[in-house]
Amino acid sequence: MIKVIIIGAGNVATHLYKSFTKTKQLDIIQVFNRDIDHLDFVDNASKKVSDISKLKEADLYLIAIKDEAIEEITEKLDTKNGIVVHTSGSQPLQILSKFKNSGVFYPLQTFSKIKPVNFKEIPLCLEANSEENLEYLKNIASLISDKIFEVNSEQRKALHVSAVFVNNFSNHLFTLAADFCKKEELPFDILRPLIKETVDKLETLDPYSAQTGPALRNDKKTISAHLEMLDEDRKKIYTLLTESIQKLHGKKL
Amino acid sequence: MIKVIIIGAGNVATHLYKSFTKTKQLDIIQVFNRDIDHLDFVDNASKKVSDISKLKEADLYLIAIKDEAIEEITEKLDTKNGIVVHTSGSQPLQILSKFKNSGVFYPLQTFSKIKPVNFKEIPLCLEANSEENLEYLKNIASLISDKIFEVNSEQRKALHVSAVFVNNFSNHLFTLAADFCKKEELPFDILRPLIKETVDKLETLDPYSAQTGPALRNDKKTISAHLEMLDEDRKKIYTLLTESIQKLHGKKL
Repeated sequence: MIKVIIIGAGNVATHLYKSFTKTKQLDIIQVFNRDIDHLDFVDNASKKVSDISKLKEADLYLIAIKDEAIEEITEKLDTKNGIVVHTSGSQPLQILSKFKNSGVFYPLQTFSKIKPVNFKEIPLCLEANSEENLEYLKNIASLISDKIFEVNSEQRKALHVSAVFVNNFSNHLFTLAADFCKKEELPFDILRPLIKETVDKLETLDPYSAQTGPALRNDKKTISAHLEMLDEDRKKIYTLLTESIQKLHGKKL
Repeated sequence: MIKVIIIGAGNVATHLYKSFTKTKQLDIIQVFNRDIDHLDFVDNASKKVSDISKLKEADLYLIAIKDEAIEEITEKLDTKNGIVVHTSGSQPLQILSKFKNSGVFYPLQTFSKIKPVNFKEIPLCLEANSEENLEYLKNIASLISDKIFEVNSEQRKALHVSAVFVNNFSNHLFTLAADFCKKEELPFDILRPLIKETVDKLETLDPYSAQTGPALRNDKKTISAHLEMLDEDRKKIYTLLTESIQKLHGKKL
């Protein structure tokens, strides 16, 4: 069995712990967090560690902590032959250069504490400091997911910013729309089927081809009617995104 | 049976035609379009009309055409007792004031020609010029959908602008992300599970509570790393949406 140590107690650490424990080939021997109280997701008290010097020798060290804490942890972490990986979308592999064997194990998904996830469907973006280590990580990743991608540090940075656009920013647009509905005493539920279809459409169309709406049609009457309804901040967002759609689709501004 | 005439040959007209013909209570007696060639979705040639003066007396006239054409059609349309409705999100009920019985029948969804839709799940937003007519429209709407909403003209305008935010603008963000991926030779498929989860999350969380990301965390390091990767146009969008998230969630800018 492959001996694994997980470092961290956040959403990624928790979900990876749960997913790893379901496989027969991986044995999580320890989980580290500075505050041991946050390790309540770990079933066995003897596996919980809050003193980093108590970490044993393992085959895989999985660092799933905040970006800004990775450097400090790597300074304190020691291993002879284990492969040390981080799970960050924005940090380079380079940050782990002190270790003989290193890699990145980046799950491209948004995790919440309460919502269970199906790792089989989550893209795992892998990188390693050698072909051998990459193969090793691929084998481990394939135990929990069907979607394995080889992604270098540059590509991972592009994915990370893409994730902000498709997840964080879209969700913010949903929030603004929820606000418009609330002001007019309409339930947010009324928008759910449209939001669902917006995404379902992408199963058959690429997003460029799926584009519709007044910006694409250059329907100036509707655009100005919309702008009239919005406050200054929303107006700026509406204008900028409308212009961006028109530029990308080669419409006259 | 309720005699229905549909006016128009676009996506909404086509999908409403298909959905109406499946019910036993509605009898589509005619479908009008200036260009009869666009009425290929109508099964019976004798029902196709391109001369508006040939329209018969019906119980319901459903105008599903471009906003800018509605006024011209209403000038030419005549009925004694039929109820005339339009399907536009942005036009007031008022535009049909010449008719004794009028209303709005606005399906809040994005339609493509090729993709079949399940009307049962589509919110139908209804308005009418009398209580009696509203009840009449509710009865008809409930034959094809389980989601009937009473929505006045002001509310409908708010819904229409909301639809632009949740559908058009989100889809544009997906397009920009697809572009980032393409430049780094990554398949768009890698982002699909994240997009899907962004929307699935809304089944258990409202969008305000579902917000995550560097803007919300006020993670300046990540934000500036992202900005460095973007061209001027994308940078503007990133900055504006980041600021908007931070304002809404009461973060220090």
